[in-house]
Amino acid sequence: MKRLLSLLAATATLACALPASAQFAKPEDAIKYRKASFNVMGAHWARLAGMAQGRIPYDAKAAADNAAVLDVAHKLPWAAFGPDTQTGDTKAKPEIWKDAAKFKEAQDKMLAEVPKVVAAAKTGKAEDLKAAFTTAAPVCKNCHDNFRQ
Amino acid sequence: MKRLLSLLAATATLACALPASAQFAKPEDAIKYRKASFNVMGAHWARLAGMAQGRIPYDAKAAADNAAVLDVAHKLPWAAFGPDTQTGDTKAKPEIWKDAAKFKEAQDKMLAEVPKVVAAAKTGKAEDLKAAFTTAAPVCKNCHDNFRQ
Repeated sequence: MKRLLSLLAATATLACALPASAQFAKPEDAIKYRKASFNVMGAHWARLAGMAQGRIPYDAKAAADNAAVLDVAHKLPWAAFGPDTQTGDTKAKPEIWKDAAKFKEAQDKMLAEVPKVVAAAKTGKAEDLKAAFTTAAPVCKNCHDNFRQ
Repeated sequence: MKRLLSLLAATATLACALPASAQFAKPEDAIKYRKASFNVMGAHWARLAGMAQGRIPYDAKAAADNAAVLDVAHKLPWAAFGPDTQTGDTKAKPEIWKDAAKFKEAQDKMLAEVPKVVAAAKTGKAEDLKAAFTTAAPVCKNCHDNFRQ
């Protein structure tokens, strides 16, 4: 707990001095955080994808519950792509930093599409989820193809 | 993307057949997910802790924003402590499964305290956050001491 507290203290102290895009004590903390938030996002996305693609039966409550997590999680990783986080335990391609405008565009598309999936997952209608998923999935794929090793 | 899609398919298929506590294709997926959700929870908790402890200046908007993430994240890890996830890349102590009732009690305490911190972080008053944090922090410490290596 002591180690955790000093880590928290260090993180918090830096958070004060740094811009919102760099609220991490060390670059590896940012990398861990963005991988963690992608993991959480991916797990809940996967459950919605299963329902949208008919591989698992549609369940309105499960869809809404997973959407609520996705709604928060999909916003998280982006602040953790600071300029000092290009190397290390990461699959992020150098293109993220070389072509920052293109990466920002991909982020913005994702940030525009996921809320539509979230909203569709909360209507209680399987066809709404399927339609929103079908539009959003290529946006995910495009970003993975371009920016992930 | 193909590999991701088959992983998602496998996850989703299993999600249908398994109880809510085991919606993961493989035990290592559950372990990764719980570590990921603890990472996200810890990062946002740390930012609130810094403000509560006066190490960084209180910022009402930042407090509310971090609280909104914490509100979702603190509920996530618990479904990923299935009986098949005791070993692997984890710091979870065997006591989690040996004394499941005690672990459940610790979870319940945490699930009762964190929403109070979330609510306090949204009032816009530093003293509210500090008071809720001071009550909640020992609950976190107790669980870490008893159940984490």
